Amino acid sequence: MTQQTFTNTRIVLASRPSGAPTAENFRLENVSVPELADGQVLLKILFLSLDPYMRGRMSDAKSYAAPTEIGAVMEGGTVARIVQSRHPDFHEGDFVLSHSGWQSYAVSDGSGLRKLDPSAALLSTALGVLGMPGFTAYAGLLTIGQPKAGETVVVAAASGAVGSAVGQIAKIKGARAVGIAGGPEKCSFVRDELGFDAVVDHRDPDFTAKLKQACPNGIDVYFENVGGKVWDAVFPLLNTYARVPVCGLIAQYNATAGGSGPDRLPNFMREVLTRSLQIRGFIQREFVDQAPAFYREAAQWIAEGRLRYREDIVEGIEAAPQAFIGLLEGRNFGKLIVRIAED
Amino acid sequence: MTQQTFTNTRIVLASRPSGAPTAENFRLENVSVPELADGQVLLKILFLSLDPYMRGRMSDAKSYAAPTEIGAVMEGGTVARIVQSRHPDFHEGDFVLSHSGWQSYAVSDGSGLRKLDPSAALLSTALGVLGMPGFTAYAGLLTIGQPKAGETVVVAAASGAVGSAVGQIAKIKGARAVGIAGGPEKCSFVRDELGFDAVVDHRDPDFTAKLKQACPNGIDVYFENVGGKVWDAVFPLLNTYARVPVCGLIAQYNATAGGSGPDRLPNFMREVLTRSLQIRGFIQREFVDQAPAFYREAAQWIAEGRLRYREDIVEGIEAAPQAFIGLLEGRNFGKLIVRIAED
Repeated sequence: MTQQTFTNTRIVLASRPSGAPTAENFRLENVSVPELADGQVLLKILFLSLDPYMRGRMSDAKSYAAPTEIGAVMEGGTVARIVQSRHPDFHEGDFVLSHSGWQSYAVSDGSGLRKLDPSAALLSTALGVLGMPGFTAYAGLLTIGQPKAGETVVVAAASGAVGSAVGQIAKIKGARAVGIAGGPEKCSFVRDELGFDAVVDHRDPDFTAKLKQACPNGIDVYFENVGGKVWDAVFPLLNTYARVPVCGLIAQYNATAGGSGPDRLPNFMREVLTRSLQIRGFIQREFVDQAPAFYREAAQWIAEGRLRYREDIVEGIEAAPQAFIGLLEGRNFGKLIVRIAED
Repeated sequence: MTQQTFTNTRIVLASRPSGAPTAENFRLENVSVPELADGQVLLKILFLSLDPYMRGRMSDAKSYAAPTEIGAVMEGGTVARIVQSRHPDFHEGDFVLSHSGWQSYAVSDGSGLRKLDPSAALLSTALGVLGMPGFTAYAGLLTIGQPKAGETVVVAAASGAVGSAVGQIAKIKGARAVGIAGGPEKCSFVRDELGFDAVVDHRDPDFTAKLKQACPNGIDVYFENVGGKVWDAVFPLLNTYARVPVCGLIAQYNATAGGSGPDRLPNFMREVLTRSLQIRGFIQREFVDQAPAFYREAAQWIAEGRLRYREDIVEGIEAAPQAFIGLLEGRNFGKLIVRIAED
């Protein structure tokens, strides 16, 4: 076998952010790719997914996952092509979903790789509508939210990877979908292209009043992925027996301190009691047994035009840090993906 | 039919409390009982249940139930004997469960009455272990809490009507029951007579540390019926996927203002997310379809000695206000019941 040398360009965590991440928290490195051992494959990364949860990995606060070590490659879901294989189950040219992180090449022993069929769907969708974000929407909405026909489902970041799927799946189940998004362009996309029943701009100075107008029968399911001021506006509108799958709190991820007073927790608990509310945090992997149903249903909904999606693709691994910083500020428009290589 | 005159002694809401209720918030009245119309029965009240939820009815704050009007009879569950009947389904001498409130006689059209068999169980148990409190424990613990064998279930007010049933049903389901109670007498009752695996005294200056010791594997189900400082001690111990049925917040019922700062709600939501917690308020009537199973199972558990209970019976309707005030301070020991008449 002719020895070919590959250079891996990777982005590592240089330091932990205090508040919003900055370019200084990341460092780009070029290193040689080691030779494969038996049972290994070499992955050339084509697409890298950027997602809000990565902010959590940059901190060493207690969470559901261990933090990324200083100097380690930033974590992330990826679509890759196998360029060398010494593994019996994988061959050069295979496309796979992997969790290789922010880098251009990765060596894998095959564990955790899932083969992708490039003729079945755009490869990048394995990171979005047909991947972890789409599955997060599906499992959280259907298992915890359990929307019934005629109920009102509200979701923020409604043009994003998770929110756009939440609202459309709610519609498929016969519920009324109300989206929250930032700015007129995203709002019109949510209403006109995704087909939500109503959309409210959280930058509108009358946001709270307009959200109430958009939910004349109150809110039965609030899919929580932002927290902060949106949550404050939603909470009074929750109906008796409302369900709140808590999937993310992006508006709080950069917070460096607890909230200032008064302490709203006692009143919150009182409302949970008097309105029989259900508040339920979750991570999609809890519902992994539903993944086969998700892949089957979501693919069909896409084919039928009932589940649409938008990708926001930035070019080159060097662009990843700024794109991620923008994601936390809501600057992306659709599922944020970095194209690391063309093929 | 000879006309017999009855005098009804009743306790009405004289004024709404600010903070803890006082004797001045109640007024005792004596009024004549009106003659029965066709289709009505006259109930002589034997037992009145006193329960924490009544504090909510005394306030006009928004809640799941309308407040008691000023001047109206205080609400409450009762066991009564029918002393006159012009209703085809009820006869003089029948015992019934009713919701007649704080009074010695009541006229009913029969709706909502449930006949009781005095040979099957002590009549007073229809207000406690075989009544609303027992069913609250059963439905909240099993439907929301869903304890699994080997898991740790924590409940406060563990010698009380709801808490004592929660811990014992948890044990029946194979879980480890940890009770919280106030003072050595209640604690020894919970451990030695009810058979909880451990008990912690919330008056102990080292309460938080001792609760942690009593839950070496963390907490999987916390049946919330008190709120306040107990909740603060429990919350850090909740395991990933813990369930918290929120049934009551007695420690907060007399609060007149929101909590002082800092605002703990943002951090609370973050913990709900990172630990995949479920927080779920409920009122037992939501689960009314489970009532037949409850009556069947609870009666059997009592017969087998696996579901024990303690009643704290005070004598005479005049004693109800002070007994209720004491209930909110934890001064009762067991299910608090007022005996209004001997038979």
